[in-house]
Amino acid sequence: MDSLELLSQLHRTSTKKIILLVLDGLGGLPIEPGGDTALEAASTPNLDHLAQEGTTGQTVPISLGITPGSGPAHLALFGYDPLIHDVGRGVLEATGVGMQIAKGDVAARGNFCTLDEKGLITDRRAGRIPTDAALPIVNRLREIEIPGYSFEIQHVREYRFVLVTRGSGLESDLADTDPQQVGIAPLEVIPERPESRLSAELFNQWIEASRSVLAREPVVNGLTLRGFSTNPELPQFGESYGLNPACIAVYPMYKGVASLVGMEILDFEGESPEDEFAALGAKWNDFDFAFVHIKATDSRGEDGDFEGKVAVIEGVDQQLGRLMDLNPAVLAVTGDHSTPARMRSHSWHPIPLLIWAPDTILPDDSSSYGERVCAHGGLGTFPTKSLMALLLGHAGRLNKFGA
Amino acid sequence: MDSLELLSQLHRTSTKKIILLVLDGLGGLPIEPGGDTALEAASTPNLDHLAQEGTTGQTVPISLGITPGSGPAHLALFGYDPLIHDVGRGVLEATGVGMQIAKGDVAARGNFCTLDEKGLITDRRAGRIPTDAALPIVNRLREIEIPGYSFEIQHVREYRFVLVTRGSGLESDLADTDPQQVGIAPLEVIPERPESRLSAELFNQWIEASRSVLAREPVVNGLTLRGFSTNPELPQFGESYGLNPACIAVYPMYKGVASLVGMEILDFEGESPEDEFAALGAKWNDFDFAFVHIKATDSRGEDGDFEGKVAVIEGVDQQLGRLMDLNPAVLAVTGDHSTPARMRSHSWHPIPLLIWAPDTILPDDSSSYGERVCAHGGLGTFPTKSLMALLLGHAGRLNKFGA
Repeated sequence: MDSLELLSQLHRTSTKKIILLVLDGLGGLPIEPGGDTALEAASTPNLDHLAQEGTTGQTVPISLGITPGSGPAHLALFGYDPLIHDVGRGVLEATGVGMQIAKGDVAARGNFCTLDEKGLITDRRAGRIPTDAALPIVNRLREIEIPGYSFEIQHVREYRFVLVTRGSGLESDLADTDPQQVGIAPLEVIPERPESRLSAELFNQWIEASRSVLAREPVVNGLTLRGFSTNPELPQFGESYGLNPACIAVYPMYKGVASLVGMEILDFEGESPEDEFAALGAKWNDFDFAFVHIKATDSRGEDGDFEGKVAVIEGVDQQLGRLMDLNPAVLAVTGDHSTPARMRSHSWHPIPLLIWAPDTILPDDSSSYGERVCAHGGLGTFPTKSLMALLLGHAGRLNKFGA
Repeated sequence: MDSLELLSQLHRTSTKKIILLVLDGLGGLPIEPGGDTALEAASTPNLDHLAQEGTTGQTVPISLGITPGSGPAHLALFGYDPLIHDVGRGVLEATGVGMQIAKGDVAARGNFCTLDEKGLITDRRAGRIPTDAALPIVNRLREIEIPGYSFEIQHVREYRFVLVTRGSGLESDLADTDPQQVGIAPLEVIPERPESRLSAELFNQWIEASRSVLAREPVVNGLTLRGFSTNPELPQFGESYGLNPACIAVYPMYKGVASLVGMEILDFEGESPEDEFAALGAKWNDFDFAFVHIKATDSRGEDGDFEGKVAVIEGVDQQLGRLMDLNPAVLAVTGDHSTPARMRSHSWHPIPLLIWAPDTILPDDSSSYGERVCAHGGLGTFPTKSLMALLLGHAGRLNKFGA
């Protein structure tokens, strides 16, 4: 039996509330041999105090050695086996900007790019053109029409947009057109199954039509599409766990994955941890579970900015009192994956985890919150997808299994 | 391949014997923040000595966060995946009092209760009437007859009894009649599948007949039935592992689950650890595996009696020499689940485990036996169902896998 199915049979009501604080890409490595990781180096008196009162461990998002993308990493945090529940990039991005993807719609993530006179890519991100410059181009792409189908296009940020196609008989098993390198032309849309042949033709037709729109542009004169996908119809988080869940996130993709599992996405002004925590505080009476997402830890890691990542972690720590003031019965602090600044990318390293739940936790001997403390923590090392069950247990939200 | 299936292909004979000592509900929490658990607080020089010579770890009975009932928890200890092998409460209780449940028989656990003049439950346990008062009522229930079916009723203890029904076409997918609260009437037996409709009618007919029997009673004037179930035909422990297993237990349910997997249940006088260990000693020549069950750790935990639980653990430790005198090659000391006195209930916390096997163990640095030592023990954290394989390995009872 899938763990999600088991939990959906065992959950019960409780007044105890859960906060899951995710610092994206939290795990890391020393920037040079012999040093501390960013989390270890950061001055985090509040997190350290929680580690002393709580217990620590580490989790593995997909399986050992496997580096997760953001979608599967978050599905694992939400208790879904990421090897079973597959969400495409297109759907993630589309739901992240508030588009509705029904079963059978096909969403693709689009990138503007720059082509030379032979049609070969010279810049896969069109010089990272600013949003202001991209918006009018997105508007003109909206003029493309193909009878029998509708095309909804939303700008995401800079050179990124989302294309959602609706109509009968659409299939999403299509290969990316982004060749992932410069010096060659964007690829054709290739069907990955015979059933997807008509959909491939449709998208190729749309791309052909886009050429005349983009021909007028100096920098943005090409585009690539990837992550063709449709709504995976995931089991809903609230029903599966008997929770009323809220998502507090800034970046579209994380709102997207939270929305796909049925969380309510809270709107708020600002982007700082302070803004996010305040937004939760304002609505906390209406919910009993909150997923709070901090993006900047991952961004600084991807930038190779070790000190920047340290500063982001310290900034979160300074605001932590705002979450504690909400009186959660259970608070988990973790990442979705590791993003070591030394690697400038996501990595497969286990994720540090801290659970604070004063009523029911057995404190281990952790004196601070960091990767190497967590590697010896009382919770051991376990799959990220099992975290939700543990949080529900500590919140008194699960019935006994069997007599 | 299921682990049980793998082991059934690999086992071989050996003269080395195994004792599995289970202190029910052993794992716990500090009774107040900053303190020791009952196991940590208990003075256990003998267990500590075994921990120094052996190695420790912790196991997870079902999966993280899931609180097990006694049945699934013991199946896991015996090496059965409790999510695959499901044993109902009725069958567990029935086999525990020595009743034979064939495939197709339906067993239910019964509770006597007290109803008011409107038929609403005022006490779900009929004032916990003593066994002496319950026995004559059980006798009168035996008078109920319904053509084509037989009903066997055994008293268990106080307000508890077991009803086993035999006849053709019986199904056990039936909902409990115990509403789990006072102020409402016992529920009707409801079929959970269309195939169980006739069985539901039969049990409702029996309950109707019981009303006239109970109408004469002042305190016990109602009953509830739950855990309708039939023999799950589990793979047999002895055959699967090449062992000749004995069970030493006092409480019926544990004898029941041991009997379902084919262990021989040893009869003996008394209820103390000393009595249990002596009973094993008297028959040890006939067996090469012993499951020894201590109930009182769980009972004291359920009572919220922290000091009582400490005392039970210390009492077992004082008698441990009697088990060591039997010269087991492998001794495991563990629980079936945790029962923190602070929670007064079973819990999902991992179970401390100690394995002593002087010929083949790699001692870790454990200096005593307790939850937090075990959380850092050399065996790590693993599913309880894998314990049997480890014990068989240490007893030299498994062939190499592959060439």
